[in-house]
Order: sequence, then C-alpha cells, then structure tokens
Amino acid sequence: MAEARLITVDDPDDPRLHDYTDLTDVELRRRREPAEGLFIAEGEKVIRRAVDAGYIMRSMLLSAKWVDVMRDVIDRLGVPVYVVAPELAEKVTGYHVHRGALASMQRKPLPAAEDVLAGARRVAVMESVNDHTNIGAIFRSAAALGMDAVLLSPDCADPLYRRSVKVSMGAVFSVPYARLDTWPRGLDAVRDAGFALLALTPDEKARPLDEVAPHTMERVALMLGAEGDGLSRRALAAADTWVRIPMSHGVDSLNVGAAAAVAFYAVATGRG
Amino acid sequence: MAEARLITVDDPDDPRLHDYTDLTDVELRRRREPAEGLFIAEGEKVIRRAVDAGYIMRSMLLSAKWVDVMRDVIDRLGVPVYVVAPELAEKVTGYHVHRGALASMQRKPLPAAEDVLAGARRVAVMESVNDHTNIGAIFRSAAALGMDAVLLSPDCADPLYRRSVKVSMGAVFSVPYARLDTWPRGLDAVRDAGFALLALTPDEKARPLDEVAPHTMERVALMLGAEGDGLSRRALAAADTWVRIPMSHGVDSLNVGAAAAVAFYAVATGRG
Repeated sequence: MAEARLITVDDPDDPRLHDYTDLTDVELRRRREPAEGLFIAEGEKVIRRAVDAGYIMRSMLLSAKWVDVMRDVIDRLGVPVYVVAPELAEKVTGYHVHRGALASMQRKPLPAAEDVLAGARRVAVMESVNDHTNIGAIFRSAAALGMDAVLLSPDCADPLYRRSVKVSMGAVFSVPYARLDTWPRGLDAVRDAGFALLALTPDEKARPLDEVAPHTMERVALMLGAEGDGLSRRALAAADTWVRIPMSHGVDSLNVGAAAAVAFYAVATGRG
Repeated sequence: MAEARLITVDDPDDPRLHDYTDLTDVELRRRREPAEGLFIAEGEKVIRRAVDAGYIMRSMLLSAKWVDVMRDVIDRLGVPVYVVAPELAEKVTGYHVHRGALASMQRKPLPAAEDVLAGARRVAVMESVNDHTNIGAIFRSAAALGMDAVLLSPDCADPLYRRSVKVSMGAVFSVPYARLDTWPRGLDAVRDAGFALLALTPDEKARPLDEVAPHTMERVALMLGAEGDGLSRRALAAADTWVRIPMSHGVDSLNVGAAAAVAFYAVATGRG
C-alpha cells in the first residue's frame, strides 16, 4: 500500500506540487501558508519532530535517495510522497533543496493565551520580533533553557515559517505558544494569571537581572523586544519591573538571541 | 592638507585600491590579510571603534556621501581616502558595499598568552571555532558580559576577518586576545597562571553550571568548542571540570552563540 503512495513527478507545473511552489518568495509564502493552513518542514530531523509533535502531514517532496531514509514515516503515514529529481525540486521551490526532504504539514488552530498560561511558570513574551531567524533562535533557546511557553504580540513573525522552524531545530513544535490579540492590553490577562511582568531592556533605570533574582519568583513572564529597537514605550509602561543584563566594556547591547538566552537562563535556572 | 588626501578614483584596476580587492573571496582574503598585515573595517561605527582602539589606518574607501560623515576622522588621520562611485566599489570589492565606508587597518602583533592572562580573572578559551560569524558573535557577548580576555586554539578563525569584526560590532578590538601555539598543551600555561579550566559540554557527566557556581571562583578559563562537534576529547581531558548548561524539553543543544552567552553570564556575573 505504502509503495503505491510513491509518485514520481517530472512536470514542475504538476498541480499536486502546489504546496511547494515559490518557497523563496517570503512575502508570498507568508500570506499563502496561513491562508492555506499549511507549513513546510525541511530536513529529516525537523520533519520527524513535526510528526512526533502531532502535526498531520499533507505530503512529502523527496529526492530519490531520501525515500529509504524516510521509509518508516512513509509507511506509517500513508500520505502522498512526490519523488522528484533535484533539478525539478529546485525548479518548483526556487532553491537547491540540499536537505533533500520537504514535508507539507497541516497547521493546528493556535491555543488561546489563557490555555498556554494555565500550566506554565516561565513564559517568554515577544514584541514585534519579525525576523524569522531570530524567532527560531529564541524558540530554540526557550526550549533548551526551560521556558514553558511563548506569547507573541500581534505583529511578531510566524514561528511556523520554514526558516523559523529550521533555525529552531523544531523547538517551535515543543514549546506551546499563542498570539495575543491586543497589544499591550493583552498583557493584562498575563498579569491576571499570576505572572510578574519583567521587561528586558538595556535602560540604565532597569535593575540588574542577578539582583532581581527572577528564578526565585513563582510565575514570571519575561518580555523581549526586537533587535535594535527593543521593547516599545507602551510595552515598557505595561511591565511590572524593568530588568537588564549587566554589561561591561562599554558595549551597547547583546544581539537579541544572546540576550534572550541569558535572560531565560536567569529566569528559569535556580542558582544555589 | 586633509582635503588633498581625498583622491577620486575611477579605474577599478588602480593599484592604490589593492587592499580592497576581491573582498568576497574568503579563501584568498584569509591568506592575504595576515600576510599583508592588514584587516578591513566596514561601516562608520566599526571604523571609529578600530581607530579608538589604537589601530593605525592605512586608507579608506568611501562613496562620496560618506566623506562628510567621516570628515573628522579624515582630518585627524590624514591618510589617503579613495572616493569612488558605488558601482566602482562593487567592481573592486566584489559586492555592493551598502555601508558605504571601508577602512584598511594595520594589524598589531598579537600579545603572548601570558600577557593577556596577567591581569585577567575571566577568560574564554575557544577550540576550533572556525566560523567567522560565530567568532564575532562570541566576542560580542564576551565583551558585553564581562569576560576579560579570549584565547584561541591554533585552528580558530581570524577575529579580524571582515565578517568577524562586523558581527562583533568591534568587540574584537576591545577584548584582548591571544593565540595558543600548541593545543591542548598550551592550556598548561593557563593553569599555571592560576586559572581553573572549565570545559563547557552537553555531556551528562558534566556538572550543571549553576551548581558549580563559577562566579564564586577566583580565576576561571571557560573552554568552548565549535558548533556541532563541541570540544575535542583531548581538550576535555585537559580540563579541570566539565560544566553543562541545564537543558529541558529534550533539546540536544543551544547554538554556540547562545551557549557562550549563557556561560559567560554564569561565569562573570555574581548572583546574590
């Protein structure tokens, strides 16, 4: 049965490849993917993590040598697997797919913020982080360093965009996240759920993270802004406490990925 | 006098532009720059930081609109300033110089490891980090988070390569660094100088960083390996203590930049 699902395709305009067209056109894909209810997982490891996390696979696009590697997944899921030459994959997607395996996955409805907050003690709240690489890197660190959930302001980039997924190494599947409908007013619900709202900022008036000792607090929501601008005034005004990473050598700032990692460690790891 | 140093060039083969040719040919530049005793600083901020750090400027390559911005530097240093059209800059360098300003700077002899260690309490030791972006990111975090110096294994990439300098935001100028001649034997000198050698590794046998509390130690040398492979067996064997960042969610690892930032914070920042 599974064998019958292997479909060799040699026409780049075959409509069955629609999920995989124009992958390098970020603007187009950013609109299309949520509208069509899909996202793209790339490479064996990330595809397996998406499946393990309970996402439903629509199809796969593989070059021939990846069929054996993915054999167990193919047999188990029984979805259409389009087997194509590397040149055809490039023609369809717009780039050289050097990881050799793409999967189109079905999105799930995002949970409500309250549901994500219910069981959590450590939450990262991102404002206006609209770079896909940064979003992915932050999710990877959040997962590794013990953050329980992520909340996004309405204008944050999509964690399920291909590049975010890849940079996160699939952490976007394992850390629950939700999008706040209003900003910064949506933060009220976070505070109502019992979280202290800590805003990470290089501002001198902020208290050093180690002095605030957030790892001793019961429930912490750590607010982070985008590379460059940081948190907006409105977001800073909505916070309970401003915290900063102690800096030396007259350096203005860490990059957002490094700052997030340090802050997650400080928030999540109790130090003796 | 300074005005006389503004030299308009419109021949891409003008030999005076030699320092700036083929900047996108990484292999070539990696050999040429140390051999010719130069490095390239790119963009106003980084150029100013190189000058402030005491590096001698050989020349600048500017598009016309950057002359006014760099006027004070031009007047003060009196080195040749080649003013070129953006198209010519692209032809010479091989890329579109969108920061509009390049400077060729004279390298200084690297200090010996002992000199770098003399006044330091917190040192990062990198093994085989040969990605220019990672080297730059690690220097940026090292500077921001209070590391006093960096030591490099013989096969680490050049911190003064253009991309490293740029990603570090000039931190490669402010954090003293030296290259160990032998590896891992060169670590003996670090231990002899009174440093505890902590090796950062995801190995389960390593002790959690927060438990080791390195910020309470007098002198710490934190050893870091490259993305992917991490520290070699030989390097791990040469360490005094293995430390790891506590991880959750079954994530294998942080990226090397995030891991370095967290470790620097743990090593350098005393927590109450």
